[in-house]
Amino acid sequence: MADDNKTPSDTISKIKALRKQELSADALAQGIFDGNKAMLAKAITLLESTKPAHFEKANAVIEKCLAKSNKSIRIGITGVPGVGKSSFIETLGKTLTDQGNKVAVLAVDPTSSLSKGSILGDKTRMETLAKDPNAFIRPSPSGTSLGGVAQKTRESIILCEAAGYNVILVETVGVGQSEIAVHSMVDFFLLLKLSGAGDELQGIKRGIMEMADAIAINKADGSNLEHAKLAVTEFSRALHLYPPKANGWMPKVMKCSAMENTGIDEIWAMVQQFVKHNKDNGFFEKNRQQQNKNWFLQTVDEYIKQFFHQKETFKKEQATLLTAIEEHKISPFYAAKILLDKITKEL
Amino acid sequence: MADDNKTPSDTISKIKALRKQELSADALAQGIFDGNKAMLAKAITLLESTKPAHFEKANAVIEKCLAKSNKSIRIGITGVPGVGKSSFIETLGKTLTDQGNKVAVLAVDPTSSLSKGSILGDKTRMETLAKDPNAFIRPSPSGTSLGGVAQKTRESIILCEAAGYNVILVETVGVGQSEIAVHSMVDFFLLLKLSGAGDELQGIKRGIMEMADAIAINKADGSNLEHAKLAVTEFSRALHLYPPKANGWMPKVMKCSAMENTGIDEIWAMVQQFVKHNKDNGFFEKNRQQQNKNWFLQTVDEYIKQFFHQKETFKKEQATLLTAIEEHKISPFYAAKILLDKITKEL
Repeated sequence: MADDNKTPSDTISKIKALRKQELSADALAQGIFDGNKAMLAKAITLLESTKPAHFEKANAVIEKCLAKSNKSIRIGITGVPGVGKSSFIETLGKTLTDQGNKVAVLAVDPTSSLSKGSILGDKTRMETLAKDPNAFIRPSPSGTSLGGVAQKTRESIILCEAAGYNVILVETVGVGQSEIAVHSMVDFFLLLKLSGAGDELQGIKRGIMEMADAIAINKADGSNLEHAKLAVTEFSRALHLYPPKANGWMPKVMKCSAMENTGIDEIWAMVQQFVKHNKDNGFFEKNRQQQNKNWFLQTVDEYIKQFFHQKETFKKEQATLLTAIEEHKISPFYAAKILLDKITKEL
Repeated sequence: MADDNKTPSDTISKIKALRKQELSADALAQGIFDGNKAMLAKAITLLESTKPAHFEKANAVIEKCLAKSNKSIRIGITGVPGVGKSSFIETLGKTLTDQGNKVAVLAVDPTSSLSKGSILGDKTRMETLAKDPNAFIRPSPSGTSLGGVAQKTRESIILCEAAGYNVILVETVGVGQSEIAVHSMVDFFLLLKLSGAGDELQGIKRGIMEMADAIAINKADGSNLEHAKLAVTEFSRALHLYPPKANGWMPKVMKCSAMENTGIDEIWAMVQQFVKHNKDNGFFEKNRQQQNKNWFLQTVDEYIKQFFHQKETFKKEQATLLTAIEEHKISPFYAAKILLDKITKEL
């Protein structure tokens, strides 16, 4: 699939010459391997495109990047608005780049196409990190469905990793299905909370607690500190009520203050401890393989559905049958059988 | 579709003659219309069958019954084991048959194929109701998936209604997805709870509270009575936190004792008030139409998936691609595209 006859320097001069023109998949991939942020951004824009012509090229870039994408740690970060996700990510990100890491920050926010980017839309919210040469920040892709947004973020991770980013932070909002999508693309899932407010007030669903590999009580500073200590005890107790995870990891509860930069080092040390734990017992790689397989199987079913639903006969027959169902002339299940029979006979 | 040349008496004599043989769809439908419990049970067994030959005949019976199935009230009843579902249903059912109603009790329990019927499996749990000529009790169908179990229950409702049962009670266990399935097939959804125990201890998920049209605090008797009164206040307050329902109904919280037969009449009066409320504003019929359409659309997608997944090429190619994904040779999304292209070219 790759065109390997060019040397990197050939490709680079070609990039320079054709800066204003559309770049080839080879040129984009080479730019990514060179750690060129502009090229990385261009490639992500390409894969986010809905134009069919861009689809093949984006896939060619992704295929080239795949082999280089497996040396990172992918961390999902969730929490309701107001919990301080942006400042947490800014402080954590800066700590990590100071230690020589390259940090990419992505986001999954299915509402962003409506609200024009409620998270990460405004890079100024992470002012210091945005200027850091070893950090790359990309707002949530827009999309009509969570599935679409999640797929594009999933593919962006591959490209960021090929560009040398070894810590990938995926931010999401703590209000629903998007957590499940993010959980299915990361190695480690961190839930940010505040002390004092109950689960209901924080809008956190039980399922999200169950997914967390760690809970960090943020804003543990000033007069909040004592409450935060109590919250750590409470949540530790609550987490013990859940059945143990298959990988043997016992979720941790810690406190931190992104504002005062306390507790952040400890959280990073804990993440590294988790990575070691999971690599030692083989769950790290196993989990990534399983995630990839799940994405494949889900996408296949999604494509299959689309294949049928866009057929004219399908749409027409479906409308007729829906009317018959409304008028109680046919059972929903038999109608489904009739529709499928008609369509498959036509194929 | 129907063979309408026979008179009922012809059909009945035919039934008698062919008792040991397989009955025709016409004969079964006529038996159901006559209110014959044995025929109703036979027809439900037929639709629960997985034999392809039975599929067409079961659908023919359902089509015949559809026109007669729209004069009932369908009530979903959930609550964790120990909350007293069986005795509640027995007391409510007896109250209803005493008032001249015909009551069918069905169940959705996806675990029943493993546990050989954890709910309703043993009719002796509803001894009085089981002997009542105006009651029909049917345990949960067995099935490999919740979807399958739910579909069969959904179809059984149609047959019961055609047999003249005007109150359909659908029991389910309060532990997960089965509530969503039952909620999508009933007009009214009742959650049974106990006083004293917290939500976590009762294993009730938040989503189930949101689905409830009413909560009944059961076992409100003896020393529990005071706790039950408190629980009514608490849950009423909790329900006010949820956004109002589209139909304008404000969920009610009541107390009852199935053992002492207190509060049951009040609950039935409230259900009737709900039915009047929803029929007056058109939501009753609208909800049933929407439920039917949803069942149709879900079933279509399920059939579409099955159509592809059972093809030999599909299975073979899928296995090959899964291996390539494990070895990081191809991205999950591109692999899905390749698989679909191969299969659709072959059709």
